[in-house]
Amino acid sequence: MLPGKPEDFRTIWLSPDDEAIVQIIDQRLLPHDYRIHDLRSWQDGVVAIAEMYVRGAPLIGATAAWSLYLAALNSAGNPAEIHAAADALLKSRPTAVNLRWAVERVLSRLTTAEKSADITRLARLEAENICDEDIEISRGIGNHGLELIEAIAAGKNGGVVNVLTHCNAGSLATINWGTATAPIYFAHQKGIKIHVWVDETRPRNQGSQLTAWELAANKVPHTLIVDNAGGHLMQHGMVDVVITGTDRTTRCGDVANKIGTYLKALAAFDNRIPFYVALPSTTIDWNSRDGIAEIPIEERDPGEVINVYGIADGKATSVRTTGPDTAVSNYAFDVTPARLVTGLITERGVCAPSEDGLLSLFPDMQST
Amino acid sequence: MLPGKPEDFRTIWLSPDDEAIVQIIDQRLLPHDYRIHDLRSWQDGVVAIAEMYVRGAPLIGATAAWSLYLAALNSAGNPAEIHAAADALLKSRPTAVNLRWAVERVLSRLTTAEKSADITRLARLEAENICDEDIEISRGIGNHGLELIEAIAAGKNGGVVNVLTHCNAGSLATINWGTATAPIYFAHQKGIKIHVWVDETRPRNQGSQLTAWELAANKVPHTLIVDNAGGHLMQHGMVDVVITGTDRTTRCGDVANKIGTYLKALAAFDNRIPFYVALPSTTIDWNSRDGIAEIPIEERDPGEVINVYGIADGKATSVRTTGPDTAVSNYAFDVTPARLVTGLITERGVCAPSEDGLLSLFPDMQST
Repeated sequence: MLPGKPEDFRTIWLSPDDEAIVQIIDQRLLPHDYRIHDLRSWQDGVVAIAEMYVRGAPLIGATAAWSLYLAALNSAGNPAEIHAAADALLKSRPTAVNLRWAVERVLSRLTTAEKSADITRLARLEAENICDEDIEISRGIGNHGLELIEAIAAGKNGGVVNVLTHCNAGSLATINWGTATAPIYFAHQKGIKIHVWVDETRPRNQGSQLTAWELAANKVPHTLIVDNAGGHLMQHGMVDVVITGTDRTTRCGDVANKIGTYLKALAAFDNRIPFYVALPSTTIDWNSRDGIAEIPIEERDPGEVINVYGIADGKATSVRTTGPDTAVSNYAFDVTPARLVTGLITERGVCAPSEDGLLSLFPDMQST
Repeated sequence: MLPGKPEDFRTIWLSPDDEAIVQIIDQRLLPHDYRIHDLRSWQDGVVAIAEMYVRGAPLIGATAAWSLYLAALNSAGNPAEIHAAADALLKSRPTAVNLRWAVERVLSRLTTAEKSADITRLARLEAENICDEDIEISRGIGNHGLELIEAIAAGKNGGVVNVLTHCNAGSLATINWGTATAPIYFAHQKGIKIHVWVDETRPRNQGSQLTAWELAANKVPHTLIVDNAGGHLMQHGMVDVVITGTDRTTRCGDVANKIGTYLKALAAFDNRIPFYVALPSTTIDWNSRDGIAEIPIEERDPGEVINVYGIADGKATSVRTTGPDTAVSNYAFDVTPARLVTGLITERGVCAPSEDGLLSLFPDMQST
């Protein structure tokens, strides 16, 4: 299903046939339709981010960077056009942290251009750098998480290691390998027997539609479950470890992630199952301490709850599940307090979910 | 939406125009289509139970009882026909406790018939009794649960009481009033400001499709949420009490209920929110103590997870959400240990979730 070898997979790339085209997977259509989508202008990039052809903080940032490259290319490096593109990109999904970071990073690099002919070249270089660095971050998380899985596998004497994950913190959310999935892919590649319980992840079904799709594409054994099922599995010894991603981690180790993560953390804690959170250090909010009090939780369109995407008679379509007289609320994230988290898996290593733990890996943030 | 006053609502009744027709709501079609379905033979009753036109233990039992009435009526009280009907009904949903209880109760009553002309009359009487008694049980649960809600309302000085419920332990699962919903309806009728958070209840969506429908029909303020959301709401003080139903309660107060109930109980416990379970005493399994070890958990058709029922272009239909290469598991229930339950609301009163608590209400079970 995925083109080529796992290590060659990318969620965004420059067309090999045409340097004026950036290509992405239209993730809205997965798993029923795998369609490559061409971005030919920065406006196409804005649409792809705003309408969620792409999602996942790292991939959103990379798409913004490549959109600035298209702005430079199509305007022959016209600064006014590039800044118009940057403004529109920043507004396309205002809550994504990596979006601002990526846009500012490319703009900053462009200030080093000595002549206008350099601008397009530098924009492309920076977009490539952002993608390459993201892959290295995922690889770091994958290697450190692999050690945890190896230790669990050793304790099981060759038995299957059962991992439960929530939402999609996978290759599709990054450039490749993902965050929560990187240790899983590396363990699978190393021949460790691994099986993944995939939470469906209502309301947007990123589990059943994205995580299940990429695990299937990479031939990693997995089973889809409804979000309600994880506690039962944990009570009955069917889960060895939980690994999720995160959208924002506080200085003290509280973790904001897709709604429902907190419930799985409670169940893991109640059943003494390790609960790890995988994160690139760029998602640590060093200015925040108490996640429940300080992290604002986005409320999204009720339509995400009411309308379910699927396939009927071979055709991709949506159905409305509810009646007309029912109000709907749609909180997108929740916060898992650090006390329920076993450890944080970062590109620099695994640490305790605490200020001391994080500062042991990132001592340069001491004075922040 | 519901015909008549709340107190006149029934999920099953004898047609007012024709004593040879028993009528039910085809619950498979809710909330998109409210359709009365006629049962004209015991075979129709078997289909209605097996294919889940009706569900909920009390309603399944009542449907079996009325099916035996149809068997008696259509065969002029022929015992062979009635026993054939009983056998088929018992096999229609083998796990439903109330099904066997209702069938045996009607058969036992029929043995008191002195002449064959009495048989149909007695079958009808017993079906009516079962329904009337079920309404009284719900009413008892409702009155005892109402006191709990009144106490919470008193503590809120006229503020809205927010109740969270999971699955459908509502009017639609019983004859009227439900179990978990009975206290809610009674509080609403009494003018207490109440608002219900309705868990969607994947995979079959009994929350979004049944509970939301009946709360809307009775004009009880409510908001649909995904199953993942409850923990976040509880962390932020948006839930005052959780009330669920149960399929089986052990002698020691462990509670088997729809998958995901355990996760809500964990979140309620973590946030010091009372978690009550409403139950007719017929669902207490006096022979079982440790729910997690002893209660077998049914695994159901993966199609329930994969296929989602809804409406598209005005037409009720289903979509498949997942890709072809993903295995699916579908555990239907989980067990909430008694330590997470605040109290059990029965038709005889509210008690602690323990052997002592249950025996204080049901002392006659001491020697069981």
